[in-house]
Amino acid sequence: MGAEGLSSVVVTHPANWFYLTGFTGESGALVLTPSGAKIITDGRFTVQARQEAAGVKVLRQRGSLWSSVGDFLKKTGGSHIGYDSARLTVAQFKALRRAAGHGKRWRDAAGWVERQRMRKDAEELAQMRKAAALVSEVVGSAVKLLKPGIREFEVSAEVEYQMRQRGASGPAFETIVAFGERAAFPHARPTAKQLRKNELVVLDLGAILGHYCSDITRTFFCGRAPARIRRWYRAVREAQEASVAAVKPGATCDEVDGAARGVLSRYRLSEYFVHSTGHGLGLEVHEDPRVAKGQYQRLDHGNVVTIEPGVYVEGVGGIRVEDDVAVQQSGSEVLTRFTRDLIEL
Amino acid sequence: MGAEGLSSVVVTHPANWFYLTGFTGESGALVLTPSGAKIITDGRFTVQARQEAAGVKVLRQRGSLWSSVGDFLKKTGGSHIGYDSARLTVAQFKALRRAAGHGKRWRDAAGWVERQRMRKDAEELAQMRKAAALVSEVVGSAVKLLKPGIREFEVSAEVEYQMRQRGASGPAFETIVAFGERAAFPHARPTAKQLRKNELVVLDLGAILGHYCSDITRTFFCGRAPARIRRWYRAVREAQEASVAAVKPGATCDEVDGAARGVLSRYRLSEYFVHSTGHGLGLEVHEDPRVAKGQYQRLDHGNVVTIEPGVYVEGVGGIRVEDDVAVQQSGSEVLTRFTRDLIEL
Repeated sequence: MGAEGLSSVVVTHPANWFYLTGFTGESGALVLTPSGAKIITDGRFTVQARQEAAGVKVLRQRGSLWSSVGDFLKKTGGSHIGYDSARLTVAQFKALRRAAGHGKRWRDAAGWVERQRMRKDAEELAQMRKAAALVSEVVGSAVKLLKPGIREFEVSAEVEYQMRQRGASGPAFETIVAFGERAAFPHARPTAKQLRKNELVVLDLGAILGHYCSDITRTFFCGRAPARIRRWYRAVREAQEASVAAVKPGATCDEVDGAARGVLSRYRLSEYFVHSTGHGLGLEVHEDPRVAKGQYQRLDHGNVVTIEPGVYVEGVGGIRVEDDVAVQQSGSEVLTRFTRDLIEL
Repeated sequence: MGAEGLSSVVVTHPANWFYLTGFTGESGALVLTPSGAKIITDGRFTVQARQEAAGVKVLRQRGSLWSSVGDFLKKTGGSHIGYDSARLTVAQFKALRRAAGHGKRWRDAAGWVERQRMRKDAEELAQMRKAAALVSEVVGSAVKLLKPGIREFEVSAEVEYQMRQRGASGPAFETIVAFGERAAFPHARPTAKQLRKNELVVLDLGAILGHYCSDITRTFFCGRAPARIRRWYRAVREAQEASVAAVKPGATCDEVDGAARGVLSRYRLSEYFVHSTGHGLGLEVHEDPRVAKGQYQRLDHGNVVTIEPGVYVEGVGGIRVEDDVAVQQSGSEVLTRFTRDLIEL
């Protein structure tokens, strides 16, 4: 903080204050000042904050959160205050500045905690291995459910139940189960649609275990896959494996993304790959770094990213294969474990 | 829009654009301009948006979302543009303004869609009745699980599974199951703690059914409740019923909140009621109006709010009773249905 010329920093985002203090409440702010750290939150969370955030003082807000934080900064915050432009809304920032009064210099400190969170330590990686092992097992048990007649939401309900039975606090995002043409939507929500013969199945699921997220996708075919589907599947698998192989310290995110894109381009499928190759993973299911074209950030050990290229053809369906990959001192470690062979149901 | 002197409005929040267009994607923006409505989103959601949002044109973003939206407004947005200060971050607004170029007047249109969403029509109310009936049933089946030895997360896993089996797309929020001292945390997350004799149980759950949320809380006692717990329970129940009785067209949110607070004050328990009495409910689990002290907004028919006073005593536990209440042309309708008698397990 001092090195960045800041007297205080306002931490606005729950995952960021959990990372720094252990407080799991959903509303409040963590204020780091020259005289120590303080959590300001409402009456629902004060007892909880005192128990969870050892060594951090807790202040119950009076009136609105942002006027309480501003009021506190006015007295003790010093002159140069870091705020998070990526998390504070225009209205919140306005309320905060008003309450803090004149004479403050506001500096954009967006990404300050996120940059620290990108490098997972050994304990965090151990937890992420467990979260990844959990979803890998769940994919295995979900495959057994995939028979003609089952509905998308029956599969997602069972998948999330299985996660919790294995100790997950919940899904890391709304489980995607997409049959047939619906598989052409990368973010399809489960519906009452029943699985029929000769349809693709995309299963994309994540779990939160001990606060850390995992994320895996596999694609199946109900029946014997026709040649066109096999070819698309082979292309996506090769693209995914090329991208996984490109993950290592010093590689740029753009290069890792480009590895998948290059393979799909050779198959003349690049126009059907409508999203980026992956995203950082940790306390949140989408965090830095972004594995996308034009992202020249270099990977470093301790980063964990998803690698998940796909092809989506309107009216036909989609294919995606996704694993979680940790960057190691040299090379990488794939955390999720489930066959990438095309399973025909 | 015209009446408010705006040429265009940028709708930034997923629940708001769903309300206006039916598009369920999680990323993008809806831009209402003099020449029509347009959804700008990334490749993951363009096909989906075209199918879901009948009559709305869909544009696939180039580069970042906010630069695409700004670029579009530059050409066709007119001079006075409404933006949502409560949803746009400082960084997003900066990117939007930069891309839209000079000559634009930015007006804060926060709450513009939320105000429309507050008044549920007959179709929305019918859906909310179903969502409320669903969670009422789930409470009934959860009670049967509450036996000494069961863990908090086992109950929450079962509760969320039951919701989905009954057709919910998912929980409306992370299910709260809190035993014993943990019931003193209004927003406790389920842990591995086992239920023991002579402990309070707070169960707070909500479901999303057909896009609409429900939310119910009941408190139980494992064993025969001692006199002090019975007295606290009676106080919370009376407070909740007084507040429910105060819900009607023309009543202010402050009055409804005050009805609960008055009862707890007579029991000398008001200092243990650490949150507000309730919140609006609809496409989101927390929406306008807020049922809290100092909120002088008047209720009107079509509003749906939760009424959920509680008392929380550190080291002992907590008690909360919550129902969903719709404001009718005269009086109100309680949507959730489960006994408010203290059940001793």
